[in-house]
Amino acid sequence: MRIAQPVQRLTPYVPGEQPKESSVVKLNTNENPYLPSPKCADVLKGFDLHRLRRYPDPVFAALRARIAAIWKTVPERVFVGNGSDEILTLAAKAFVDDGETIGSLDPSYSLYKTLAAIRDVPFVPTPLDADYTWNGKIKGHPALFLLTNPNAPTGVLTPSEAIAAAARRFKGVLLVDEAYADFAKSNCVPLATAADNRCVIVMRTLSKSFSLAGLRLGYCIGPEDLVEALYKVKDSYNVDAVAQAVALAALNDLPWMRANVAKVRKTRARVAKALAKRGWDILPSDSNFLFARPAHRPAAEIFAALRDRHIYVRYFPGPRTGDRLRITIGTDAEMDTFLSAVAALDKA
Amino acid sequence: MRIAQPVQRLTPYVPGEQPKESSVVKLNTNENPYLPSPKCADVLKGFDLHRLRRYPDPVFAALRARIAAIWKTVPERVFVGNGSDEILTLAAKAFVDDGETIGSLDPSYSLYKTLAAIRDVPFVPTPLDADYTWNGKIKGHPALFLLTNPNAPTGVLTPSEAIAAAARRFKGVLLVDEAYADFAKSNCVPLATAADNRCVIVMRTLSKSFSLAGLRLGYCIGPEDLVEALYKVKDSYNVDAVAQAVALAALNDLPWMRANVAKVRKTRARVAKALAKRGWDILPSDSNFLFARPAHRPAAEIFAALRDRHIYVRYFPGPRTGDRLRITIGTDAEMDTFLSAVAALDKA
Repeated sequence: MRIAQPVQRLTPYVPGEQPKESSVVKLNTNENPYLPSPKCADVLKGFDLHRLRRYPDPVFAALRARIAAIWKTVPERVFVGNGSDEILTLAAKAFVDDGETIGSLDPSYSLYKTLAAIRDVPFVPTPLDADYTWNGKIKGHPALFLLTNPNAPTGVLTPSEAIAAAARRFKGVLLVDEAYADFAKSNCVPLATAADNRCVIVMRTLSKSFSLAGLRLGYCIGPEDLVEALYKVKDSYNVDAVAQAVALAALNDLPWMRANVAKVRKTRARVAKALAKRGWDILPSDSNFLFARPAHRPAAEIFAALRDRHIYVRYFPGPRTGDRLRITIGTDAEMDTFLSAVAALDKA
Repeated sequence: MRIAQPVQRLTPYVPGEQPKESSVVKLNTNENPYLPSPKCADVLKGFDLHRLRRYPDPVFAALRARIAAIWKTVPERVFVGNGSDEILTLAAKAFVDDGETIGSLDPSYSLYKTLAAIRDVPFVPTPLDADYTWNGKIKGHPALFLLTNPNAPTGVLTPSEAIAAAARRFKGVLLVDEAYADFAKSNCVPLATAADNRCVIVMRTLSKSFSLAGLRLGYCIGPEDLVEALYKVKDSYNVDAVAQAVALAALNDLPWMRANVAKVRKTRARVAKALAKRGWDILPSDSNFLFARPAHRPAAEIFAALRDRHIYVRYFPGPRTGDRLRITIGTDAEMDTFLSAVAALDKA
């Protein structure tokens, strides 16, 4: 009694560092370096305080309608969460029975393993191939398979045809976490909106491409019965009134998001080229970050040396990740600072 | 597979109606009729969009420090949630093992039963006495006992001495949901902050007294090990940057909240007196609502007739609740409209 046993055993997920100083170059949590749409600021400036006084719409009707319109589907197929993190937690509750398992690629988003531990079911990793691609086979028979696509921390995209084929064979729920898909050349939303979709849920977040990590707004699209199950297990009012309004404004200004994404992709190409020229091994990225193996010094050393210079990137120790760094694409000026530091640090 | 069995069986909680028309008199979800502090509006107007671009503080340091200061305790004893609903969900995960149970008073907040169903453990109600008071005994041996105090939908306050005595005997976690405590003559926070507190968590929300139901901000105070367990099971960034900032502004303007509470209490006394004069039976309320038994017609009929006149109160069918209405205290003008309607409807 008092503290549940799975929680006593639990090693919590550690999110990327959020340094207090504003002078740092922050390339460690895949935030967008550009501001969200000015329409978001307009919403905040003109926010009717009576909307704060009252409970928010528990089923976020306006937001769902807009998301459904963007993807040419019906609102009944759309669910919205307090960040896509919440959707993951709800999916672990709604789609996994005691005695079943949760799976994901390995390496992938390290939260997934913690999620299975919190849900108190075994986690079954599906190892990626040597080149960090996925062969489309799912190991074991997980009730819920969490597929980040493009994957993190690798940035590598699995083509949607391969995912469609995997879904046809799969008995559980296949949740495709498309946090980075706006930066990619293709996405799986058509699988989620298809009339005969039985098990694919595609999840999006406004944290990356829409520059709204601080707002906590994620959504997903899937078969109606699965979406309905998510509604059954959510908290009554899981998305606050301000977040609903600001997210709607952002989703009504897609050109702003797309322009920011275009800038990030251009910078991504330039930085990848510059690092490759130094001899670094760069995985092909369809995301807003690079997963790169330094040429001359171990990744852990470069990570620490960059940190000393107030440049934060992400380092994941481990057999498949420990020789690389995950570098978020910042502004051109930030990336120039990063590249200069690398030039000074990573010498033969 | 696909949808978990407890979720298939689940009857979802139905929150109070949120009518779309603005002309209604809305006395059904215990919202505050007065606006939140103007300092909340200032925060929204001046919100730095870079704070939306970046992830929020995952441990809400500024907010915790302020809450700790208000209650003269340490930040390590404070946890903040996306509404107190989220804290309840996390408590059901953190403090209840499979095979254990969740308990609450009966009648009480009807969400608790759904919460146990979502957690997939039995719910053990402790019946109130005939006069809707609690004798301090907890039925069964629940791992988590959810005690709304003042209780809802009754409005009745259990004195903190009785709760302290119950806590001394109790082996599980006693979570005192003080959503309405700012409207009451006493509260249990001293039990939560006491040095020898082993099992009492006191939970607050900004939804009622602070007029911020739309913001989704709840917090709780308890023993450090229990608070730490809540941190272990929460989503990484469960409280968004805007909510953190607006809540901090509200908590920095306690006089504003207290002035609104004083107005509500004054109106509560007036309405209780007026209804009693008509022969209605009114339970003694320490909350921002009245739980009242009409004198001449069944509660369900009055409920429906009020609704026809665009006056929304709350009706809970059932053996202990079905002969009463729960009436939120609105502005004086709203309550006059309500009282006039009652005068027309509830005739002998």
